[in-house]
Amino acid sequence: MENLLILPHNSELDVTTYEKLGVKIFTPETITPNDYAKITIMLGWQLPLSEKILAAPHSDLKWIQTVSAGIDYLPLTELKGKKILVTNMSGVHATPISETVLLYALYFARDFPTVLANDNKHQWAQHSEFANIKTLNQLTWTIFGTGHIGAELARLLKAFHAKTIGVNRTGHTVPSFDKTYAQSDWQQAVAHTDVIVNIMPLTNETTHFFNDQFFQSLNNTYLFVNVGRGKSVQTSALIQALKDHKLQHAALDVFEEEPLPSTSPLWKLSNVLITPHYSAEMADLGNAWQAIFLPNLKAFVKTGNVIENQVNLSNGY
Amino acid sequence: MENLLILPHNSELDVTTYEKLGVKIFTPETITPNDYAKITIMLGWQLPLSEKILAAPHSDLKWIQTVSAGIDYLPLTELKGKKILVTNMSGVHATPISETVLLYALYFARDFPTVLANDNKHQWAQHSEFANIKTLNQLTWTIFGTGHIGAELARLLKAFHAKTIGVNRTGHTVPSFDKTYAQSDWQQAVAHTDVIVNIMPLTNETTHFFNDQFFQSLNNTYLFVNVGRGKSVQTSALIQALKDHKLQHAALDVFEEEPLPSTSPLWKLSNVLITPHYSAEMADLGNAWQAIFLPNLKAFVKTGNVIENQVNLSNGY
Repeated sequence: MENLLILPHNSELDVTTYEKLGVKIFTPETITPNDYAKITIMLGWQLPLSEKILAAPHSDLKWIQTVSAGIDYLPLTELKGKKILVTNMSGVHATPISETVLLYALYFARDFPTVLANDNKHQWAQHSEFANIKTLNQLTWTIFGTGHIGAELARLLKAFHAKTIGVNRTGHTVPSFDKTYAQSDWQQAVAHTDVIVNIMPLTNETTHFFNDQFFQSLNNTYLFVNVGRGKSVQTSALIQALKDHKLQHAALDVFEEEPLPSTSPLWKLSNVLITPHYSAEMADLGNAWQAIFLPNLKAFVKTGNVIENQVNLSNGY
Repeated sequence: MENLLILPHNSELDVTTYEKLGVKIFTPETITPNDYAKITIMLGWQLPLSEKILAAPHSDLKWIQTVSAGIDYLPLTELKGKKILVTNMSGVHATPISETVLLYALYFARDFPTVLANDNKHQWAQHSEFANIKTLNQLTWTIFGTGHIGAELARLLKAFHAKTIGVNRTGHTVPSFDKTYAQSDWQQAVAHTDVIVNIMPLTNETTHFFNDQFFQSLNNTYLFVNVGRGKSVQTSALIQALKDHKLQHAALDVFEEEPLPSTSPLWKLSNVLITPHYSAEMADLGNAWQAIFLPNLKAFVKTGNVIENQVNLSNGY
């Protein structure tokens, strides 16, 4: 008998199907402290409740299914020690995140800052007011992280006839990337590029990967996008690069500190577009979660094992 | 000996190559009234000069190569009577216009109005502030006009896994469109759609095609886009539809009157995005023009005929 604690509020999760599998459902509203040790499966991660479940004496917790792709916020060492299975939602976010990145690029490429400033003034812009308007086939893209999301973004970019360079740990080839480099060869990967996108998971190796040395190596690069994790970027180095014209524009969805404080100097830079860690948002997200969680739940009830999206707790993704 | 009047200022046009073909070059700066009758080829159309060339007694004008796809602004009856060849730049604008339309859709689908309002206030938006965020695969698109531009837009939309419906004169099938309808069956084509895009050329049939009857047949349709011609839309009917919630959003690049006067009520509607007839703009446009004009010029010098993009002056495209 499995006891499932469902943490996100999402009316699209088909709870009835879970119950038909013999699974008992708990939510933050229905659970009592006496139930904490009974929980065998957690869908999502929410503090402080999740830590209480994990710390409950004689806890039966065996599996955590996150609703995120990244799992850097979990107590990985503790989970590994307790041999708790972790699965993530890798794959679900590829579509909304890729579309967000394309929106960022088109926003700058078609000089929407000037368009929207004129709209606000009820004023027809002269074409001479626009910055050089670019099409995506005129841009070379370097994507750090060639997993589900990076590969989907590259697939769409090839439809636009853009040039695509991928960066991953080993430099192994990946479909839709014209070329790939190992992380250690990042300088070659960004030497002649226009758009740099970070979609790497946060690990020890990727923390502050985009630091002063990285940004100062750029040369008036068109756009830096971060839809990975905020802590992969040294914010002060990014700001300096924008001021030094090492970088023309930045579009950022994630930050070292979230929510981004209203005092952050990033808000004041006119060449920076800020979105509130929302690139994975989409309608019907529950259905997409279901497509990963339900097959896993069915397998887990039957065999005690999951069939997809299991995370390696040692390397953190 | 051909005498070519080049009207647009574009440093990317390879004038030297034209001269090597034995063509004599004139520009608005170098031409004198004595030269008007000598001009045999006009690249572009610019008033009042172009009309003076056309009206010059004993004019030698034989060919006009426009730099636009639409040719509705030319004196078609007069050109037909004088048996002047007209070629357009159809094909050149497919990439920038398609990217502009995708930018419009992503701008609304990912609720950029809320994102940018928060950016202006240096404020991190709560996710509950956002309108239902959509991905493009959740939208059905009906594209009026399945020529170069419509087909390129549909090709890109299929890469995003969107549903595509095309509308053309006869309803003939076109690659990348899941379904096509004849113009006379427009009601079926928009009955269950989310995004309506006008890319039709302006003809008698398409003038005020999007009128009161059209807009009032909609039912809270997500988005109307006009990147065709302004006169295809009855502006007052569009405004009424937006007020009546027949239509949720509009993104408009072209208008019945251009420049759009600062007194137009369209500026004041918060669910309307206005761009200043710039969807075809891109860097290196001259190179794209060259790819159509130069082969035509070579053929014309040799044979007196062109090889591509000749317009039928009777149907107007």
